[in-house]
Amino acid sequence: MDWLDLLNVEEHGLDRTEPMYARITSGIRKAIQSGELTDNSRLPTNRELAALLKIDRSTVSRAYLELSQSGLIDSHVGRGTFVRPLAQRRRLAFKSAEEMPAVSDGAWPAVLNWTEKFSESSRASLDLIGRQPAAPERSDIISFAGGIPTEEFYPNEQFHRIVNELLQSADAARMFGYSAAEGSHYLRTEVKKHLLKHGIDCGDDELLIVSGSQQGIDLVTNIFVDPGDLVVLEDPSYFWAICNFRARQARCLPISLDNEGIRLDLLESSLARQRAKLLYVMPSYQNPTGATMSMARRIALIDLARKYQVPILEDNFVGDLVYGDAVLPPLRSLPGGKDIVIHQGTFSKALCPGLRLGWLVAPPEVTARLLLAKRTSDLSTNSIAQIILAKYLEEGLYSKHLEHVRLSYRARRDAMLKAFSEYFSDAELSSKMTWSSPAGGLFIWAKLAPGLSAREFLNFAEMEGVSFSPGDIFFLNGGHSEYLRLCFIQTEESIIVEGIKRLARAMRSYLESVARLNLADISGKARVRNNVLI
Amino acid sequence: MDWLDLLNVEEHGLDRTEPMYARITSGIRKAIQSGELTDNSRLPTNRELAALLKIDRSTVSRAYLELSQSGLIDSHVGRGTFVRPLAQRRRLAFKSAEEMPAVSDGAWPAVLNWTEKFSESSRASLDLIGRQPAAPERSDIISFAGGIPTEEFYPNEQFHRIVNELLQSADAARMFGYSAAEGSHYLRTEVKKHLLKHGIDCGDDELLIVSGSQQGIDLVTNIFVDPGDLVVLEDPSYFWAICNFRARQARCLPISLDNEGIRLDLLESSLARQRAKLLYVMPSYQNPTGATMSMARRIALIDLARKYQVPILEDNFVGDLVYGDAVLPPLRSLPGGKDIVIHQGTFSKALCPGLRLGWLVAPPEVTARLLLAKRTSDLSTNSIAQIILAKYLEEGLYSKHLEHVRLSYRARRDAMLKAFSEYFSDAELSSKMTWSSPAGGLFIWAKLAPGLSAREFLNFAEMEGVSFSPGDIFFLNGGHSEYLRLCFIQTEESIIVEGIKRLARAMRSYLESVARLNLADISGKARVRNNVLI
Repeated sequence: MDWLDLLNVEEHGLDRTEPMYARITSGIRKAIQSGELTDNSRLPTNRELAALLKIDRSTVSRAYLELSQSGLIDSHVGRGTFVRPLAQRRRLAFKSAEEMPAVSDGAWPAVLNWTEKFSESSRASLDLIGRQPAAPERSDIISFAGGIPTEEFYPNEQFHRIVNELLQSADAARMFGYSAAEGSHYLRTEVKKHLLKHGIDCGDDELLIVSGSQQGIDLVTNIFVDPGDLVVLEDPSYFWAICNFRARQARCLPISLDNEGIRLDLLESSLARQRAKLLYVMPSYQNPTGATMSMARRIALIDLARKYQVPILEDNFVGDLVYGDAVLPPLRSLPGGKDIVIHQGTFSKALCPGLRLGWLVAPPEVTARLLLAKRTSDLSTNSIAQIILAKYLEEGLYSKHLEHVRLSYRARRDAMLKAFSEYFSDAELSSKMTWSSPAGGLFIWAKLAPGLSAREFLNFAEMEGVSFSPGDIFFLNGGHSEYLRLCFIQTEESIIVEGIKRLARAMRSYLESVARLNLADISGKARVRNNVLI
Repeated sequence: MDWLDLLNVEEHGLDRTEPMYARITSGIRKAIQSGELTDNSRLPTNRELAALLKIDRSTVSRAYLELSQSGLIDSHVGRGTFVRPLAQRRRLAFKSAEEMPAVSDGAWPAVLNWTEKFSESSRASLDLIGRQPAAPERSDIISFAGGIPTEEFYPNEQFHRIVNELLQSADAARMFGYSAAEGSHYLRTEVKKHLLKHGIDCGDDELLIVSGSQQGIDLVTNIFVDPGDLVVLEDPSYFWAICNFRARQARCLPISLDNEGIRLDLLESSLARQRAKLLYVMPSYQNPTGATMSMARRIALIDLARKYQVPILEDNFVGDLVYGDAVLPPLRSLPGGKDIVIHQGTFSKALCPGLRLGWLVAPPEVTARLLLAKRTSDLSTNSIAQIILAKYLEEGLYSKHLEHVRLSYRARRDAMLKAFSEYFSDAELSSKMTWSSPAGGLFIWAKLAPGLSAREFLNFAEMEGVSFSPGDIFFLNGGHSEYLRLCFIQTEESIIVEGIKRLARAMRSYLESVARLNLADISGKARVRNNVLI
C-alpha cells in the first residue's frame, strides 16, 4: 500500500482545505469503503504514518480515533491497528454517516455529514476523551481507578426518614417546583453554616448552589474564558477540568508542582509574560497527586494572584475528607482571598455523588455573572435533592457522617500504604515504584522507575485482576507515562490488600516481559477505547 | 453638564481602545465618584446621549445597565435616569469593585477589575437579561407572566408512595449514586416507551437524558456552535434559547412566522445565501406565540433542512399539553426526520419543573457528541429524580396525570378566551387588542393596536394588579412593542377572569393616559430591572 498515494489529494478528490487529520480520516475511509484497504489489513503505526507525511503523531492519532469511533478500524496494544471486517462494521452501534441507509423519499442527501458540523468545542472534547483507557474486559477486577465513594456509606436510611418527613409536611410541593436559580434558600442557609466551619463567611450575594462541582467549573469557565484566553493550572490536574477548559478553547498553561504545591517561580514568570484569565488549583489533597499546598504557599499564591490580578478558582472537592490533625484553611478564608478567590466545593465525595450538589463562593459581582450563566445553562438545580440535603445538614447528620467516613477512609488509606510496603518491599520491586502518603482525599499517586510505563503496566495489572488510572491523562500535554493514580476509598481493606498483592504480581510479570521482549517498539501506541461513549 | 466633555478621552484618562459602552460607563462612574455628577442629578435619555455621541441607542442602554447594576444610577419609567444618592449606593448588595473596602495587608490592589475579566459570553447574557421587565413591586398581582405549572397539579402523594417503595427496596442506594452520563437505564427505558406514543422510535444510542430542556439546548449549542456560527430561529422565540445562542456568540438569524409556522420562503433565501449550523424551532404550541406549524410546513421544513444540510433542533417543550383532537406528529417522527432532527422534550411543563428532567433524541453520531458535552458540563444528571420519574412513568401514572391536566388547562385556556371576549368586547377596547386561540401549550399571544406599547400597558396593568410578559423580549432584535404573552395555566378560572377584568381596566387607564399626555417622549425608555440578578 502506498500511503502517500492513498492520501493524495488529486486522485481521491480530497479537499485540500480540510485539516490534515480530516484528510487522513476520509482518505482511509474511502479506501476501506472502496475495498482498496481490505478487511483485517494492517495500518501503519502512528509513528510510521507521521514520519511518512512529515506531520505530528497527534494528528495521526486523531484521525485513527475518529476512524475507530466510526467502527472502521480497531487498535490493539502491541499488535497494531487493523481494518475491521465488514461484518463487524455493520454491527456497530455507532454507525458512521456514510453507512446509514438512505431515506427513500425526497431528492436531497439522506444524511448530514455531521463531522463537519461539530464545533471546535466538541472536537476538543473528543480528542481528550480518546486519552482515557478502555474499560477492562474482565468483570472481577479490583478497581483502584476512578474516584467514586461507594454505596456502603450512603445514608440511605436517614435520607429515607427525611424524605418521608418532608413529603408529609405542608410544603411537600416545594420538592417538585422550581428552585431559585441561586439554589433553595433552605440549602443555602445550611451550606453557609457548613462553610463557616471551614472559615468561610459568605454573604447571600456570594453563594451559588450548582449541580455538582463539574458544573461549578463549567460556569466559571463560561463567565471568564473566551477562545484563546489563558487558563493556568497545576500539572497534573483534574481530567474533566482540563476537558472543560479545552472545550472552551482556552489556552491551558501547565505549571508543575513541588512538595509544597504549585511552583510559584514558574507561575510568576508565566504571569509576568502573559495575561491569564483564570488560575485553577486544588490546594488540598489534589487530584491526581493527593498533595496538599503548604500554608506558606497558600499565602504567597494569593499575593501573586493579586499582584497579577488573576482570579483563582479553588476546587476544594475533598475538603471534608481529612485524615490527619493538621487542616489547612481554604484560600478563600485567608487574608485577601475573599476578593480574588472563587471557592468551590461538593457533597459528592464525602457524602454521595448522585445528589449532584455543590457550591460556588465568589465576590458579589462574580456571583451575579455566575448566576446568569447558571440560568443560561440549565435554569436551576433540581429541588428534591437540595431539600433532602438541607434537612440532612440542618439535623447535624453530615458532621456525624464525616466522623464515620473519615475513620473508614483513613483505615483504607493505611491498608493500601501497608500493603504497598509489604508487597513492594523485596529487592526486585522496591526500586521499581514509589508512592505518596496523602493526608486526606481519595488518591495515592505512584511513580514507576525510568523506562517503565503505567499504560503497559495496566495491561498486566488487568490480566491479574486489578486496575488503576494511568497518570498520563492528567498531564496537560500528555507524556509522563511513569505515573499512576490509585483510589483507596472504593474498596474495603481486605480487598485493597488483595488488589495490591495482584498489583505486585502484575509488576513481576511486567518486569519479566520487559526483560524478555523489547517493549520499546510498542510503547508509543496508546490504546484506543472504542466503548468510551457508550 | 457637558456630556461630550465628560466622556472626552484625554481629560479623563479613559482608554480609547475600550469599547464605547465601557467608555461611557467609566466616564459616568468617575464623574459620580468625583462628585462632578451630584446625587439625584438627571442623566440624558438613551436617545439624547446616543444622538449626542452619534452612536447606537443600544450602546447607551448597555452602559446605563452596567451603571444601574453597580448601583450607581437608577431608572424610572416616565421620569428618567438619575444618580443614586451616596447613602443608597453604599447600602447596595451588589457593590461595584471600586466601592469595596481595601484589604489592609499586602502591597497589591485589593480587588480585581472584574468587569474586564468577564468573557464575551457573559457580556452577551448580561446585555440580554437587561431586557427582562422588573418584577412588579406589589405582591397581590395576578400573574400571567412566566410559564410555570403550579403546585396544585404536582403528584406529591404518588411521588411520596413511590419514594417510599424505592427506598425500602434492595437497591435504594442507586438513588444516591452516580447515574450513567446518558441517564439511568430505568428512566431511559420509560422515556423510550413514552416517545413511541409520539411516533418516535429511538435506539439506545440515540437518547440522552438531560437536566431539563434548557440543558438540552445548551448541549446542542455546545457541540455545534462556534463563535460567529449562524443559528436560524423563529422570530419571536424562547427567551432562554436566544440567551444561550447569544452567549455562545452565535450569529442569530430571525425568521418570521405566518399562520402555518416559520416562513419557508424567507428561510430558504437565507439558507441559500449563508451556511447555517443549526435551525431551532418549536413546531407545536410555540413559545411565545402558541402557534402550531402545519403538517405541510413540517414536511417542507424537513425537506429544506435536508436540501441545505442544516440540523434542526426541535423543541417539543409542551408536546403533551394538547387541548384539541388534532395532534401533529413531531418532526423527528416524519420521513427523513430521523437523520436531521434533534428532538427535545421535558417533563417540566406537563408534570412538575423541579425534577429538572428532559431528553434529547438525535442520530447516534450526534448523541455520542452530546454525551461528551454532558460529561464536560456536569458529569451526569441527579439520580433520585430520574428514578422517581421512571417508576412514575412505569406505573402508567403520567398518562393518567396528562388526562387530568389537559382538561384543567383547557378549561383555563377557555376561561381566558371567554374573559377576553367579554371584557374586551365593547366599542372602546375591541379595536385595541387581538389575541390568539392556541390548541395546546401555555400561552395566549396578544397584539395591541398601532401606537400602543406592551411595556407601557404593563405599567398600568401592574397598577391594577395584573401582569404579563411584554412580547419584545422574545424578538431577536427587540422592537415589536405591540405584543404581549399571557400564560393561562398558572391560575384557576375565577382568578383568570378577575385578571382579565383588571387588564381591561388597565387598558382603559392606559388609553386615557395616551389621550391625555403625549406619551411619545417616554416610549423609548426601557425599564431597567435592578433586581434581576438577585
